[in-house]
Amino acid sequence: MSAALASFAAAPASAAPAPDRLLSPDELEAALRDIGARRYHNLHPFHRRLHSGKLDRDQVRAWALNRYYYQAMIPVKDASIVARMEDAALRRIWRQRIVDHDGEAEGDGGIERWLRLTDGLGFPRAYVTSTRGILPATRFAVEAYVHFVRERTLLEAIASSLTELFAPTIISERVAGMLGSYDFVSKDTLAYFDKRMTQAPRDADFALAYAKEHATTPALQAAVLGALTFKCDVLWSQLDALHHAYVDPGLPPPGAWTPGAEA
Amino acid sequence: MSAALASFAAAPASAAPAPDRLLSPDELEAALRDIGARRYHNLHPFHRRLHSGKLDRDQVRAWALNRYYYQAMIPVKDASIVARMEDAALRRIWRQRIVDHDGEAEGDGGIERWLRLTDGLGFPRAYVTSTRGILPATRFAVEAYVHFVRERTLLEAIASSLTELFAPTIISERVAGMLGSYDFVSKDTLAYFDKRMTQAPRDADFALAYAKEHATTPALQAAVLGALTFKCDVLWSQLDALHHAYVDPGLPPPGAWTPGAEA
Repeated sequence: MSAALASFAAAPASAAPAPDRLLSPDELEAALRDIGARRYHNLHPFHRRLHSGKLDRDQVRAWALNRYYYQAMIPVKDASIVARMEDAALRRIWRQRIVDHDGEAEGDGGIERWLRLTDGLGFPRAYVTSTRGILPATRFAVEAYVHFVRERTLLEAIASSLTELFAPTIISERVAGMLGSYDFVSKDTLAYFDKRMTQAPRDADFALAYAKEHATTPALQAAVLGALTFKCDVLWSQLDALHHAYVDPGLPPPGAWTPGAEA
Repeated sequence: MSAALASFAAAPASAAPAPDRLLSPDELEAALRDIGARRYHNLHPFHRRLHSGKLDRDQVRAWALNRYYYQAMIPVKDASIVARMEDAALRRIWRQRIVDHDGEAEGDGGIERWLRLTDGLGFPRAYVTSTRGILPATRFAVEAYVHFVRERTLLEAIASSLTELFAPTIISERVAGMLGSYDFVSKDTLAYFDKRMTQAPRDADFALAYAKEHATTPALQAAVLGALTFKCDVLWSQLDALHHAYVDPGLPPPGAWTPGAEA
């Protein structure tokens, strides 16, 4: 039995690059950006199809339905991080993420804006929020993310959010591509992404500065790089599952939403 | 926000049948067997190909490499269950599962027998046990199983093992099919399955009797049925990921083992 399995919480989340010397903060940032350039889900064939108009309406619906669970769990993930912060100043900054997703009142916030997309795609809200039609692989990946931020160090939990460094690019591609290609989405149903264009860079700047300041040994830098690699895997595996179930070969697992079936 | 998401631990693992009245113990057993008949992974196209000789050696290797992580985490899963049992008699019974997988000494036990299969398929042991080449979806599914038995009720944790009710059928199909189809496996490298032919039914009989005795309300019966459904999803989603990465379309995610690459 490998040492990696001796402690579940310490098991490697993913094969991650391990620097053999202390990187400067700028070198660490470059290594993080390199992970994004190679592993961020904008490179996935499903996203390339989504953005270039090559998916049919049911395939876009499957994406929005599954991605809802990811959106809905983001504040649970962020509250789990806030719960681990012993510094009020840090908690004040991070709690803004919960506010962004949950809103100030019913009908406001990122989750609500995601539901406007699933509304526009014809899903009853109760079906979407029940999450009973999502792919098991979506559930497992999203829950792996929540467990990760609860079980790893706070530095790793914060670093796992760094995929937001790469969000503005994918969002601008996505909105332009989807509006230009699909008559079943509109600027209003894609409102979620407008807000994220300003929220994601603000959040990513903070997390990146935190990681650069606190990853002060090669081992901590390896942990930060591993956390971002893990998070890229969380996003990528969700698209693998969508691709398998709804594109090629198109075999939804038992119990998952099936195009044409009543939601 | 749905009630299902208000408490992460109480979120539905999977869409599961919910009886609207109390089932008799025999009706509960029939409902469990019906889940297996519809959702057990012997029905998955990847397994059908595996057993009928339609996979090439690299596809069989990918299966064995990924499945190692599942095998390796089984005693971690079972120790997590033992850790939740307050009754010594129950712990004595369940601990046998840990013994079966870990063996009495180095070189013995189910994990060791699985490594004989990966040996026979040409993987260095250190590569297999590092788990660095497995699919992220394998990792997420297996870890979902470990988290499930830690976070749900003991009854659900026990019921999630009930896929073993269906193991003898798949194992006999698998061993006969693989020995008849592939010159790169042998009776010796498939020794893991010989042992499981007697261990799995013994374990399943106990877990089934426990579930039938303790699921004494419709809600507890729904929880038991949900636990087995969840576990079927854990197994199925691993094959979905293998199918996507190595069969159709054959796109391993970044960082995963790639046929032809040095292990």
